[in-house]
Amino acid sequence: MQIVIAPDSFKGSLSAAQVCAAVEEGVRRAAPGAEAVAVPMADGGEGTLDCFLRGAGWQEVRMTAHDPLGRPVAARYALSRDGRAAVVELASASGLPLLDPGELDPLRADTRGTGELVAAGLRRAARDVLVCIGGSGGTDGGTGLLRALGVRFTDAAGAELPPGGAALARLAAIDDSGLADGVREARFRVACDVTNPLVGPRGAAAVYGPQKGATPEQVAELDAALVRFADVLAERTGRRVHDLPAAGAAGGWLAALVGVLDAAPARGAELVADLVGLPAALDTADLVITGEGRLDDQSAGGKVVSVVADLARERGVPVVALAGSVAGPLDDLHALGLTAAFSLADGPRTLAELTEGAAGLLAAAAEQVVRLFLA
Amino acid sequence: MQIVIAPDSFKGSLSAAQVCAAVEEGVRRAAPGAEAVAVPMADGGEGTLDCFLRGAGWQEVRMTAHDPLGRPVAARYALSRDGRAAVVELASASGLPLLDPGELDPLRADTRGTGELVAAGLRRAARDVLVCIGGSGGTDGGTGLLRALGVRFTDAAGAELPPGGAALARLAAIDDSGLADGVREARFRVACDVTNPLVGPRGAAAVYGPQKGATPEQVAELDAALVRFADVLAERTGRRVHDLPAAGAAGGWLAALVGVLDAAPARGAELVADLVGLPAALDTADLVITGEGRLDDQSAGGKVVSVVADLARERGVPVVALAGSVAGPLDDLHALGLTAAFSLADGPRTLAELTEGAAGLLAAAAEQVVRLFLA
Repeated sequence: MQIVIAPDSFKGSLSAAQVCAAVEEGVRRAAPGAEAVAVPMADGGEGTLDCFLRGAGWQEVRMTAHDPLGRPVAARYALSRDGRAAVVELASASGLPLLDPGELDPLRADTRGTGELVAAGLRRAARDVLVCIGGSGGTDGGTGLLRALGVRFTDAAGAELPPGGAALARLAAIDDSGLADGVREARFRVACDVTNPLVGPRGAAAVYGPQKGATPEQVAELDAALVRFADVLAERTGRRVHDLPAAGAAGGWLAALVGVLDAAPARGAELVADLVGLPAALDTADLVITGEGRLDDQSAGGKVVSVVADLARERGVPVVALAGSVAGPLDDLHALGLTAAFSLADGPRTLAELTEGAAGLLAAAAEQVVRLFLA
Repeated sequence: MQIVIAPDSFKGSLSAAQVCAAVEEGVRRAAPGAEAVAVPMADGGEGTLDCFLRGAGWQEVRMTAHDPLGRPVAARYALSRDGRAAVVELASASGLPLLDPGELDPLRADTRGTGELVAAGLRRAARDVLVCIGGSGGTDGGTGLLRALGVRFTDAAGAELPPGGAALARLAAIDDSGLADGVREARFRVACDVTNPLVGPRGAAAVYGPQKGATPEQVAELDAALVRFADVLAERTGRRVHDLPAAGAAGGWLAALVGVLDAAPARGAELVADLVGLPAALDTADLVITGEGRLDDQSAGGKVVSVVADLARERGVPVVALAGSVAGPLDDLHALGLTAAFSLADGPRTLAELTEGAAGLLAAAAEQVVRLFLA
């Protein structure tokens, strides 16, 4: 019997790899002869890089890049052992947490550092690049990233624009003739779970600008600059990204990746599942155990549990979710393929008790699930 | 598919019948076509009478009896619809809660009222009598009960002893020549889960006397009186009840039932299972769902879950327990036949939240269990 363990991390408690270890312990107790296959998962957000680095087949590459304000910062990305794939997390070099509250500079902060990580991966011959979005410190439409890959953004006089989103108001031309080696051959996939458009009242500046320090006037300034950016992109490529769902994620970042690099946005958990080989693992599974910190009907919207359930359903494999908290009803998840869901709580418990005792409780819950499954 | 639902009550939260209803709701959601058979259970302690009265096939008989101090009290027992079986709970007429704290009279309190209930059942032609022990207000060795059935307890001068345990110090003879009709023909079964002997440091007076108001001197006095009672019983019947396990329950009550009435003490949950027809219900079951408020390795010692698990195991039927609290490890229960156990907690919850939300949480947990079982 083969049991695949493919959970998300339990935020604030256990990494996905730790969840796997705990569940595996329970599986062993209930079915010592079963083969447990651990496939730690992530949803493309925080923790995704760690999910890869803790799995087999990936190595961590550390390097110095530039932070949102252009200062050196220790950053990292994951490279597959065969060198063909790289996973880059925006948070590593371009995340908002890299800035102190007093340093926020919404008009000028950029994503150059992330582009440097991508460029480094391409130099190492990676041609499958997964870019995980989330919590960027700027609203530059991803122009910083493109610059690091050799794209030039110039004004009407042909002069290079300074970094950041505000300068895009003066954008006149995009020149990608100097693209770095490998960029054209690479496949860019962007893990993104938000659906905000690039501009307008639900756009990158309006929704995410304020948390990056933008005043209402600066939000308007940035929104106008992103419109200009999208206009020039559309002129040049024939592709409008103004209203593209998800283009507003991470300071309009996706606009650059889609508009210039032909990136395909997709649900993070689906991309991760693909890169870690989950579909193949499920082909021979008898049971799948997944999980996340909190499970509810929103989990049906592309989070790890829903993606695992969907892949399992396609193969007719039962899939059980374990979660710190199960907020039912779970009709959407059941419809998607989730067989059953159980909380790891074993009685009246505080959140702190559940968090601290999560590993032991997970093992106990997994043991019961496997026992019932075998019955 | 047939699913038998055979839970104990969740103390302080739901009666066994309410637990059945909640679980049935979950079963219906997961398997609308399944046949759900509700068999509310009890362990012979508090709530056992209600368990019968809420089930089909039993009627409540209300009557006035005498409380531990000889005052009239509204009491009740359960009579099977065919009139052949009666269930009497000691708490109804002879329970400690019937006395105010200032009224406690450990030397004189007796169990006459319970005997009156038994006698009433016998007059109605019941010949299978289940007596549920628990929380008696006195330490009379069950002599009050026997008196109500026609037994006389006399001193050396042939005079009848006054009620209560202390008077037994002067016991010289037991005369059962005036036994009420039907007593000899009846089968008495006593539901009892404690193992204390009648006398000595773990006996009825030493362990339970203080909570009934006995001072250390009174404990010694009662213990000596019970020794005398057991001596006279042994002389008369050739049967020693001094060290009989469980004879110390409920003020030494079992001594009278075993010594004079040939009662068979047995685990309460087993007796209840037998009387409510659980074994037959399990014969055709595909799955059993049981449960209790708190499940732990002590639950293996004859409580409802262990008895249900044992009966199910004999028939090769998987059995799942749902509980407010599951305090593992559950090795003993698993060895006994319990397939799996799950808490109804759906995340961080206070005891009050679990208690108040128990019905909804039970339905949700049962739904998940049945879904997984069907997978």
